[in-house]
Amino acid sequence: MSDLLDTVRGLAKKTDSKILMVVLDGVGGLPLTVNGDTELATARTPNLDALAQESQLGQLELVGAGITPGSGPGHLSLFGYDPLKYVVGRGALSAVGIGVKLNAGDVAVRGNFATLGAGRLITDRRAGRPTDEQNVAVVDRLRAAIPEIDGTPVEIYTESEHRFVVVFRGAGTPLGANISDVDPQVVGVVPMLAAAHDPASERTALLVNEFVARAEALLSAEPQINGVLFRGYSDVPHFPSFDDAYGLRAACIASYPMYRGLASLVGMDVLDVEGHEDALDGKVAALRDNWDRYDFFYFHVKKTDSTGEDGDFAAKVKKIELFDALLPELLALNPDVLAIVGDHSTPSKMMSHSWHPVPVLIRSEYARKDAATRYTEDEAQRGSLGLRRGTDLMPLLMANALKLNKYGA
Amino acid sequence: MSDLLDTVRGLAKKTDSKILMVVLDGVGGLPLTVNGDTELATARTPNLDALAQESQLGQLELVGAGITPGSGPGHLSLFGYDPLKYVVGRGALSAVGIGVKLNAGDVAVRGNFATLGAGRLITDRRAGRPTDEQNVAVVDRLRAAIPEIDGTPVEIYTESEHRFVVVFRGAGTPLGANISDVDPQVVGVVPMLAAAHDPASERTALLVNEFVARAEALLSAEPQINGVLFRGYSDVPHFPSFDDAYGLRAACIASYPMYRGLASLVGMDVLDVEGHEDALDGKVAALRDNWDRYDFFYFHVKKTDSTGEDGDFAAKVKKIELFDALLPELLALNPDVLAIVGDHSTPSKMMSHSWHPVPVLIRSEYARKDAATRYTEDEAQRGSLGLRRGTDLMPLLMANALKLNKYGA
Repeated sequence: MSDLLDTVRGLAKKTDSKILMVVLDGVGGLPLTVNGDTELATARTPNLDALAQESQLGQLELVGAGITPGSGPGHLSLFGYDPLKYVVGRGALSAVGIGVKLNAGDVAVRGNFATLGAGRLITDRRAGRPTDEQNVAVVDRLRAAIPEIDGTPVEIYTESEHRFVVVFRGAGTPLGANISDVDPQVVGVVPMLAAAHDPASERTALLVNEFVARAEALLSAEPQINGVLFRGYSDVPHFPSFDDAYGLRAACIASYPMYRGLASLVGMDVLDVEGHEDALDGKVAALRDNWDRYDFFYFHVKKTDSTGEDGDFAAKVKKIELFDALLPELLALNPDVLAIVGDHSTPSKMMSHSWHPVPVLIRSEYARKDAATRYTEDEAQRGSLGLRRGTDLMPLLMANALKLNKYGA
Repeated sequence: MSDLLDTVRGLAKKTDSKILMVVLDGVGGLPLTVNGDTELATARTPNLDALAQESQLGQLELVGAGITPGSGPGHLSLFGYDPLKYVVGRGALSAVGIGVKLNAGDVAVRGNFATLGAGRLITDRRAGRPTDEQNVAVVDRLRAAIPEIDGTPVEIYTESEHRFVVVFRGAGTPLGANISDVDPQVVGVVPMLAAAHDPASERTALLVNEFVARAEALLSAEPQINGVLFRGYSDVPHFPSFDDAYGLRAACIASYPMYRGLASLVGMDVLDVEGHEDALDGKVAALRDNWDRYDFFYFHVKKTDSTGEDGDFAAKVKKIELFDALLPELLALNPDVLAIVGDHSTPSKMMSHSWHPVPVLIRSEYARKDAATRYTEDEAQRGSLGLRRGTDLMPLLMANALKLNKYGA
């Protein structure tokens, strides 16, 4: 597998130039009717249009032809890590996303609270989607009841609604993460027993099964949250940090846990963001306040994806327009290299992530401008960057920032 | 090299949607004069034009930049198997194409009847292109004379004209296929002795050389067919079947042996086709009759290639128009995903296969449409699919058929 990262790593140099990568989550779309416009083409975006006219456009395929990226692989690709080579489990992502540091030998596990009926049959895999407050209350009880199992420290964290994370600390006895799911992913059956797929994971399977048993015993009187299901086990991923790979002091400006966790895994500093949900004003403030301290910023906008997942075409258009209104504040900082991109497409028509390439825009003094007049899928198709793998983006941004030495004499 | 097949394999899911892949053999072309039109652009194709207007176009490079694909590698690429990784020898293809099943340990060898003059010097490498009837008569004599060599069963089959296939059955003693050619590929010299390139193939070289000697002894009185030349030795290729790789129940609708053999090697059901040569009506009937039984159809049209190989521009144009006339019958079946593509280019101007990318068209509800108004090389160059490797096609068709799960969380 061709991996540019290793080459870039050997060529990176530190300079004063600044790179701003804006990820509009799930921004690529589809028209609702055969000859209709996409969400991007429908949106009124005077600032993005003006930016496109002084930029270079193209399309990125984040994982590969036809492959629909999850948020993890999509972002890893944008950050230059081939997602077929660098795999991060959901458990590790979730753990790091809520600020939990994982060490070698630890295993992080993604959990759902569930409702079990007679004979332990699962009646609701999400326990009726409890509130975050209900979640916290149950997590508190579990923490008190299960601080350790057989000498292995156990940490339990709220994620949101029905979601929580368990970290088994394997410092003394390193734990493997190669075990089968407890969550059968259907209702009407009992939770499965976790089984180890290799010797290093045998103890992990025991710990998980014991956790399930103790949690059910503790919660047996509860009508709604009385069971736990696990899937997505992960140990700590090992790959070069952003500093190591690019020599960049990098900062993450994102408000949702998974994106913050991902940035943390590649060694970015995760900045505090004031405000709720997408908190765009808080993000801009964080960017402005920290502008002098870093040479790379990952700036994440979530709602373009959420509205697409909801199938709400008009709302996605609005979220794009909302970002457009904010754009002048980013431009005012005058980044040497600015990229606007998505981590995958989320067409409202499909109500899900999709495999379609994402439009990418690069503005820099050295970018080879093209005829694009708007940041849309159509214009991106004709853009001078062509159709590329997502992992091409970071080398292009580094080059445009004049942060890469020549390869060979 | 990134091999998407392994990734796709882990994501494939079964659904009711149907994919139709039409391969117009050698369809890509060149203009005869600098500013002229290609065969596709010259052809009057109202149905293809209308289809292009509701589809997405692009270009595929089947093997790699500048590489002219043989029919085997071209098709393997379309089927998603990297032809640089998955190699099928011509011998195996020929054998399977005439309905001969190969087993582990067997070696299939492609043979030419030749004319030898004084001192065994080759005077015609194709023995004056005998008729199929002459071929059968000689094969019958060889079969009677050489049923086995040193305990190894030998099977001899007619292919056509000067071509035949020998299968050495290695059930008792597995045979390697790594030996050198008997055919020197020039006239005026004697046939070469086959030599083994590895220990496992030493016995195979002995068998081949003994076959050559016995055949020449048997045919020594013949003025025209009195020698045999071998090249293209192959053992049984091992790669994931279409069902295994994609979870597809796949059917092949083709009339020529090689294409049927290739489809069979990847595990497609090879359907009966009524009629002679390209038998387009028989193919459409086979497609219609079996529509409910499969979820993937490979539909092969041969004459677009043959006419190009003949250097007959006008005839190739006619064959394209003939397919265009047939297209409504395919569209009437309403495939969820329809692809029109070639397995390589065969410009009439060159009278041979060529390295030029082939135009590809995908129609599906979820394809990101572009501005194309015709299925031509020019329009394909501007298409939204961009320029891609041939192995990207299957993942894209699977995605458009909503048969692939998301990669990662």
